[in-house]
Amino acid sequence: MKLSQRITNITGGGSDGWDVFYKARRMIAKGVDVTELTIGEHDIRTDPVILAAMDQSARGGHTGYAMVPGTQEMREAVAARLTERTGVPTSYENILITPGGQSALFAAHVATCSPGDRALYIDPYYATYPGTIRGVGAEPVPIRTHAANAFKPKAEEIAVEATKGAASLLVNTPNNPTGTVYGRDTLNGIAQVCKEHDLWLISDEVYDTQVWEGEHISPRSLPDMAERTLVVGSMSKSHAMTGSRIGWIAAPKEVITHLINLATHTTYGVPGFIQDAAVFALAQGEELEAEIAAPFERRRDIAKDILANQNTVGLVPAQGAMYIMLDVRATGLSGEAFANSLLDTHNIATMPGESFGHSAHGHIRVAMTVDDKRFKSALQTLVDHAEHLAA
Amino acid sequence: MKLSQRITNITGGGSDGWDVFYKARRMIAKGVDVTELTIGEHDIRTDPVILAAMDQSARGGHTGYAMVPGTQEMREAVAARLTERTGVPTSYENILITPGGQSALFAAHVATCSPGDRALYIDPYYATYPGTIRGVGAEPVPIRTHAANAFKPKAEEIAVEATKGAASLLVNTPNNPTGTVYGRDTLNGIAQVCKEHDLWLISDEVYDTQVWEGEHISPRSLPDMAERTLVVGSMSKSHAMTGSRIGWIAAPKEVITHLINLATHTTYGVPGFIQDAAVFALAQGEELEAEIAAPFERRRDIAKDILANQNTVGLVPAQGAMYIMLDVRATGLSGEAFANSLLDTHNIATMPGESFGHSAHGHIRVAMTVDDKRFKSALQTLVDHAEHLAA
Repeated sequence: MKLSQRITNITGGGSDGWDVFYKARRMIAKGVDVTELTIGEHDIRTDPVILAAMDQSARGGHTGYAMVPGTQEMREAVAARLTERTGVPTSYENILITPGGQSALFAAHVATCSPGDRALYIDPYYATYPGTIRGVGAEPVPIRTHAANAFKPKAEEIAVEATKGAASLLVNTPNNPTGTVYGRDTLNGIAQVCKEHDLWLISDEVYDTQVWEGEHISPRSLPDMAERTLVVGSMSKSHAMTGSRIGWIAAPKEVITHLINLATHTTYGVPGFIQDAAVFALAQGEELEAEIAAPFERRRDIAKDILANQNTVGLVPAQGAMYIMLDVRATGLSGEAFANSLLDTHNIATMPGESFGHSAHGHIRVAMTVDDKRFKSALQTLVDHAEHLAA
Repeated sequence: MKLSQRITNITGGGSDGWDVFYKARRMIAKGVDVTELTIGEHDIRTDPVILAAMDQSARGGHTGYAMVPGTQEMREAVAARLTERTGVPTSYENILITPGGQSALFAAHVATCSPGDRALYIDPYYATYPGTIRGVGAEPVPIRTHAANAFKPKAEEIAVEATKGAASLLVNTPNNPTGTVYGRDTLNGIAQVCKEHDLWLISDEVYDTQVWEGEHISPRSLPDMAERTLVVGSMSKSHAMTGSRIGWIAAPKEVITHLINLATHTTYGVPGFIQDAAVFALAQGEELEAEIAAPFERRRDIAKDILANQNTVGLVPAQGAMYIMLDVRATGLSGEAFANSLLDTHNIATMPGESFGHSAHGHIRVAMTVDDKRFKSALQTLVDHAEHLAA
């Protein structure tokens, strides 16, 4: 009687810079006034009009089992959104509604990776990626990127690993943790590798409404890519509905058919009243999304202004998502040492680049999730601290 | 680029009597007035006072990410419930909150079964059991039971398969689809086999509030069983919250620690406002649960009365859960043929015993999920139909 190797190995073992995160939690628990720039969660709550729609649905009787694939209305609303924004004709049969983006990410890997398969992903990465791949019994293979290239992957470097055999490639644009947005050239390179090496592409697009420079291009819209791409989407970031746990996968119909079977045996659907709230939220259109995204663009501009006046802290081109990635190598410290020092000295909590893999060492990720005034003050303190260390 | 074997094999292939279910769906879609006795879902909605608690929580601001293991309040509420009802000292560290019982069932098998492991379960079974086991890459091994023993498993028959090697055994009492409640002797036999053959026991207890004869005994409460038992629980049946997707696993602390890692990579928690609604519902105590369970006991009594007046249709001792299992072998038909005939002739939809495995052939499962008057009329028609066929 022992636990499965798969579950005991999910976390991989390395703490990799999360100590500073837990230290901040402990300080907060003790009552210290920590400026919290670690977590990708809005400083606003879900809009009351969305919650009213949820309540109306629940009290109206939508409290029984919803259809496992998602309600017809929600599947159609997501399909219409993708058709409109990506140009890829998408029907409800291309959509599975999931209890959040993480659930979609897991299901996409179950569908595409058999135990022992190699599954590629881009480093630096969102914290759960390698664990999600290990959770399905596959082998996570990071593709390193480089600060000099704004952490965008190069097709030839993906190809090196793809040549060794792989089932899937996971990409994320707009990117967490770097704040970059992949352009057409980067995405064309990725698509080429996927086609040449017969990879499934899993495209995490949960930040698709948060783009400050350039445009969001879904790789599913590139030539011959819809047939091999599984898009992971979510209401969490676009509609400040993180706690509602509702997302989706868009994929070829045959893939969705199998994913519905998986959902029957893993989650058994998503609450109908939450789906109705999401349908209401989507029906508000891009105006609501723009309103929810606006604070992050505003704070990115604040950060750019502050950083323009100095040469110690570098800014990775901040094109989208709710984070900025700062290069603190001029201080002589690792990202982890800098983040610890900033927390210890100024009660400002950020995430070391090392928490997101090997590529972003000497960097820190700053979540732009406190109000503008506090954000501005924290950024200035951060810069002053870096200059003090570098002096 | 092909889909994983695991996902394409989840459903196993056999239709096994679900044709009648889909036929009933099609008839309803066409406007036929079908008496629906197939699905395990209450004929009431979630209580408005529970929905009000949910709305209050959401509008109060509990719309951000909840803690992945569950809120402290919900974990403690479930722990208190299990401590009180089973006598097993249970702390919040023994509890993981999951998005529904199915999610708990899947996670419990991920934790205990490695790919290729044999996972035992009792036949007849709840429809998702073998697919859930295949979904984690393990091999589902049914343990047949016998109508003559009211479909309760015999320890010596479990031991035959356990001897061949197995990682886990899944049991369900009160039982779906048979309506039986396992007594202490049956459970002691199960516990003995688990200890002798070093099996994890996964105990699906989602019907624990629906017991009409005897008492619900959790096998986790038997000597030396808490350390090897994972209990699957849910608010769905006990509180008519099927659509809210909230359940739990109770297990040893070490197992929960690993299950939390799994949850981080598969579901990322359960909406906080749903957990708050569940805490409110649990705080109403056994009175609310009894009120929700009462209609099924009442309808079971109606069924017993009708069946007492004839000798054609046999009743498997109906001790709990929202179903009765009827023996229709005297008609000379299989369960599937009888269910089809009843649907075609009288627009009454039931599930063939064959949908739940091989043991319950010649039986049908009747969900007691329509109002008493309609239920009574349908049961009488069913008996008349059987007598007509047997004549």
